[in-house]
Parts: sequence; structure tokens; C-alpha cells
Amino acid sequence: MEDLITCVEEQPQPPSSLPNSWTNQHSDSAQRTDEEPKAVGGFVLVHAGAGYHSESKAKEYKHVCKRACQRAVESLRAGALAVEAVAAALVELEDSPFTNAGMGSNLNLSGEIECDASIMDGKSLHYGSVGAIRGIKNPVLVAHRLLSEAQKGKLSAGRIPPCFLVGRGAHDWAVAHGIPPCPAEKMATKFSLSAYKRNKRKMEIAEKMDTPENPMKRRRQSSETENGSECLDTVGAIVVDQEGNVAAAVSSGGLAMKHPGRVGQAAHYGCGCWAQNSCNSNPYSTAVSTSGCGEHLIRTMLARECSVALQAEDAHQALLDTMQNQFISSPFLASEDRVLGGVIVLRCCRCEEDPPSQDLQASLDVGRHRHAVE
Amino acid sequence: MEDLITCVEEQPQPPSSLPNSWTNQHSDSAQRTDEEPKAVGGFVLVHAGAGYHSESKAKEYKHVCKRACQRAVESLRAGALAVEAVAAALVELEDSPFTNAGMGSNLNLSGEIECDASIMDGKSLHYGSVGAIRGIKNPVLVAHRLLSEAQKGKLSAGRIPPCFLVGRGAHDWAVAHGIPPCPAEKMATKFSLSAYKRNKRKMEIAEKMDTPENPMKRRRQSSETENGSECLDTVGAIVVDQEGNVAAAVSSGGLAMKHPGRVGQAAHYGCGCWAQNSCNSNPYSTAVSTSGCGEHLIRTMLARECSVALQAEDAHQALLDTMQNQFISSPFLASEDRVLGGVIVLRCCRCEEDPPSQDLQASLDVGRHRHAVE
Repeated sequence: MEDLITCVEEQPQPPSSLPNSWTNQHSDSAQRTDEEPKAVGGFVLVHAGAGYHSESKAKEYKHVCKRACQRAVESLRAGALAVEAVAAALVELEDSPFTNAGMGSNLNLSGEIECDASIMDGKSLHYGSVGAIRGIKNPVLVAHRLLSEAQKGKLSAGRIPPCFLVGRGAHDWAVAHGIPPCPAEKMATKFSLSAYKRNKRKMEIAEKMDTPENPMKRRRQSSETENGSECLDTVGAIVVDQEGNVAAAVSSGGLAMKHPGRVGQAAHYGCGCWAQNSCNSNPYSTAVSTSGCGEHLIRTMLARECSVALQAEDAHQALLDTMQNQFISSPFLASEDRVLGGVIVLRCCRCEEDPPSQDLQASLDVGRHRHAVE
Repeated sequence: MEDLITCVEEQPQPPSSLPNSWTNQHSDSAQRTDEEPKAVGGFVLVHAGAGYHSESKAKEYKHVCKRACQRAVESLRAGALAVEAVAAALVELEDSPFTNAGMGSNLNLSGEIECDASIMDGKSLHYGSVGAIRGIKNPVLVAHRLLSEAQKGKLSAGRIPPCFLVGRGAHDWAVAHGIPPCPAEKMATKFSLSAYKRNKRKMEIAEKMDTPENPMKRRRQSSETENGSECLDTVGAIVVDQEGNVAAAVSSGGLAMKHPGRVGQAAHYGCGCWAQNSCNSNPYSTAVSTSGCGEHLIRTMLARECSVALQAEDAHQALLDTMQNQFISSPFLASEDRVLGGVIVLRCCRCEEDPPSQDLQASLDVGRHRHAVE
């Protein structure tokens, strides 16, 4: 099963305090619905990652997506901002042993779990990110806390608060800020440990074959591994809150058998997620969350590129063009034989008839795109 | 002294093998020269960092810039590509005890040196980066090696080579790839150690004053520290080689008293450096290297924004607009009371009269911009 597993949730009954003029519609790349707008007080879209998901676990993936949506919706109902709701969704995704994020993440070359996560608030345009962090069950909470702390302004003696922490330093910062550490053995699951053993065996075989006389065998072995069922990617969510603020977040255990210290797009500004409220120069609020091969998503800055495309009047076509020209056929990936990635996107706008100072009028587009090129 | 200390070097006598149609001119933001084009086989521009340089060390800064230029020029003369020459320039900058990169870098909160560096090759559009790496004298060599290894294609069993490594994992990868480790005590200098002690004292005083009743004192203390003489930033270089390929690189010890694990723009794709040869959609080859407050440069992706501006016909005006609108007045930095950054930029183009398959005709613009806003 090669789909980007996603789940969409609207607040079915907007609280009485909500602007009742919020509207939404959703579409994906293959199909675009033009349903009548209906009242809603927020919007949540989550994904459990592009990649090769096991058919046998399809139910669990959908179930965890649903739970993540519900967590975010509960937050919104309780009056949370988009950035808080998106973090709540991510916690649920990270806590699932079936996703490649937080608990049950892919193990690296040394048999350890190192996670990346980032979050962006479209309202303040602040951003927080952690890379290659160990021993923290919910990396997104560290990213969220970095974002919150940075919003408070400078540290003592005029020091600028960090927006991106990695490795041991990130772990220590998290613990010092009240986020509990988690023993490594609790983060690995039976599934991730057996996948590690399988991958290690494959690597050993591949390395034995790695001789100049045997290039075909090496290549074949590579393809087999690439098509294995354990290749799952970054999870993420995008949210619009009651006030029309957008937020986005992603979290990932990274590539299986990655080198320790490797950081993927989930911790990279503009590459893993993007969220930006509308402003003078941008008529639409946009939120994007990506999934796929981290190195490809970094080198094409896909989250930000999609956000730019969403400002086009025909966002659907602009997104398709972006995926084709800025990703699949990107000159930055010209040397790659495979380009893998997926995004969930969202945009909402104010209707021009209503002055911005009144209740918001919004139309909401949600697009889903996933492309694989051999 | 608040200037971005820079040095420009051209190969005075192009080797006989060079296309003799190379031309260059240079200008900065205040002055634009329209000299007659003259033959040259390459171009190198380096900077020792934006920030508050000590007047008493001006000679050393200029001297190390000159040496870095010369190293890159020697590489070009020996037939090196731009990406190799730019790495050579950075090694010289990192080896200087006066710059905040490699040897003599700022110490972090724990009194340790953690460095960021990245490099981009405009020809292959490959990129390598290290963040928060300890015990390596020349972080740029690790970034360069990551770039080179990624260009070789996939690892065993089809694994995708990393473009960005951090912390302990980056250090171990470097050593495994033949880059020698350097004991921490050899990387700190008398100057960086005494700056650390001074900063620590200032922090202790500031934290004692950090009471709700005393906001003014706290603020004043902040400003004093910000204006201290030990605040130096990322160093970098940009190069055009004999074939017209561009490359850019940056290296930094990061902010003084940063939290361990903090990664700045010098390790962030699109933020620290950018290099892109001309192609169908971009008539100009461009190279950019930034310096300043890492968090500000990350959140505005300044290197890439400048590269985009350089594609405008009136690149000078477009750059000024970018620095004003995408940096100084950027909505992403709206909450910041100070915005600090500088860039060196370069662009070159092919003349349309000459078919691309023949010797290149190029004109070369170099811009320097530094802005500080209170």
C-alpha cells in the first residue's frame, strides 16, 4: 500500500462563540469536490506518512489518524489555538507504535532512535525544531516549547533564544523545561526492532555484493530494500483554528538505518512544514506538511514551495505544477533515480465582501498530492 | 567596527587553458562601477563575518581574508572546481584564531565549542552541512565531504546518503571518513576563553537583575552585552571557477553562550549559503553567503531570497528591496527589536551572442550589503 494515509476532521458543531461564516471544501489531486459550504469552527488534516505501509496494518494507521484528528478537534473545542491543536494531533501520532515518529520510530545504523520534529505557527510566524533527539517520547513537544519560549523574547543578557536544537543539547534543554525523558528501550517496539534486524541483514548481504564486478547484483539488492514494507515516513498535521489561524507540524524517526546524527526534512525550516496566516502580500492563509525522502524534501524546500503555490488563484493547478517542476523534475534532484514525497496542504481566505475586522468569511481548500517517479 | 569585513580576489593572469572571454566587474551597494571587462579566470570573495569586530584586530581580519582569497585562487589555478576552491578559502578562515569559526570559535553555555558549516555546489546543486559538531578543526571539510559522498549515489542496500549531520554522529562520520579529530582544548583560544568568562559574568549579573520589578535594568544589561566586542558571526566565501561554476560556503561557531545543540543558519539549507549555476529558467549563476543572527537568517531564508533577487535584471535594486522587505521589515521578524545580518553575493551570466557550447562570456556583479536596524 503506497498511499499517503490521511484523515480529515471538521468540528461538526461549531461552538456558539465561533464566527458562523466559516466554510470549507476539500479536494485531492485526482478529485475536486464542490460541495456547498457549511459552518465549521476549525479544520484538522493529519497524515501517517508517505511510504510503504503494510496492508495488514491499514486499520491501525487509519485509526491513529482518526484519533489524532479527534485530539486536535478536542483542543480546538476547548479554545486552543491552531498551534496547540496541531501539537496535540502530533502527540497522538508519535505515541502510536505503528508510525515512524516518537514511539516505534525506525532505528538508525547503531540501533538507536533519533527523532526530528518541527512546528510552525502561522499567526506569529514563529518556528521550533529539534533534530536527532534521543530519549524523548514526544519530540513535537520540544519543538513546540522552543517556539513558545522564543515568543517570550530574549534570554538573560540579551541572548537570542534558539529555534533549532539538536542531539544531546536538545534532550537536555527539553528535560530542563519539564519534558520527561524516556528510556531508549521503551521507545523501540517489537516491530521496529525486528525491522532493524532485517535491515541489518540486508545491508550485510548488500555490502558483500558490493564489488566492482557485481554492479547489477548491488543495484537489485538496493531496489529490493527500497520496496520493503518497513519504509515509513514523516507524520504530520495541519490545522485552522476558530480565529482562522493556521499551524503545521511534522515528526519523524527518519530513514531506517540512517547514520547517527542524520537530520531530515522534519527538522528543516521550510522543508517539513509551513504555516502562514494571510497578510497584506498574501491573500490566503496556508499550511503544509510534507512526507517522503528527507534529503529530497530538503533540497527542494517543498513545504515552502507548496505554500507559495497556494497563493495562486488556481491553487490546484499551481500545486500540480509545483509538484512536477519543483519536485519531480527539479534540477536539484536531477541526479536522483527516484524522487519520493507527499504533502498535505490547506489554504483559507477572507471573503472580500466582509471587512477583515468583522467575523471572517473563509473558504477552505485542502489538497493531497503524492507522486512517485521511477 | 561594525563592517562586514570582506576581501575580493581575481586571478590576475588567467592560465592559458582558460576561456579568455571571461570578464568581470564589481560593485557594492553604495557604488557600482562600470569598468571595461577584462580577462580573468575566476573570482573569489570572502568575509570574516558581520558583527562587532575589535578595531585593534582589524589588520588580522583583513590579513586572514586575504590569505583565504589567496588559498582559493591557488586552488583555481591548480584547476580546482569552485566547490573545492571555496572549501579551501573556508579552511583558512576556520584556522584563524581571530574568526568565529573552527579554531577560536565562541564557546557555548557549557564552555564548549560546537560548530556549524555548509557548502553548496552550483554545478551539481548538491549540498552538505554539519551542525553542532565538536572536536573537528575544519567543519567545512566535513560538509564538503558529505557533499562529495552524496554525489557518488546511494549507499549499500539502497540507502540515501545524508546531506546534513549533527552532533556526535557528525563527528564520528567525519573521523570515519578520514577527517582527524581535534582535542577541545586545542580549539579554544586565550581570546575565546576570556570572552567566555566575561560573558558568564555578564549573564550572572543579568540573571540576578532578572526580577519583575527591575525590567529596565535587565533591558539595559541586554543591550550592553549585545554591543560587546566579542560578538562575531559566520564567515564565508563565494567563488566562480574557470568554467563558470559557482559555489558558496559558510562556517560558524555560533552565538556566544548559545545553548548546547543550538544550530544556526550556517548549517541551514537556503539560509547560510546558496550557489546555483545558470540554467534554462535562471539566466544568471548566483552565489550567496550570509552572516548575522542565525535565528533571523533562518526564519527569512536570506541566502536563497538573495539568490532569487539576483535573477532580476536590476539586481542591485532587487537586492536592496530584498534586504528591506524580506529581511529588515520581514513579517517573520516582526517581533524582533533588532535585526542583524549581512550578505556577500555574486552573479555571472553568459552572453547571448556566444553559444553556450563555446567559451563563456560572463559579466560578474558582486554586491555587499549590511543592514542593522534598531
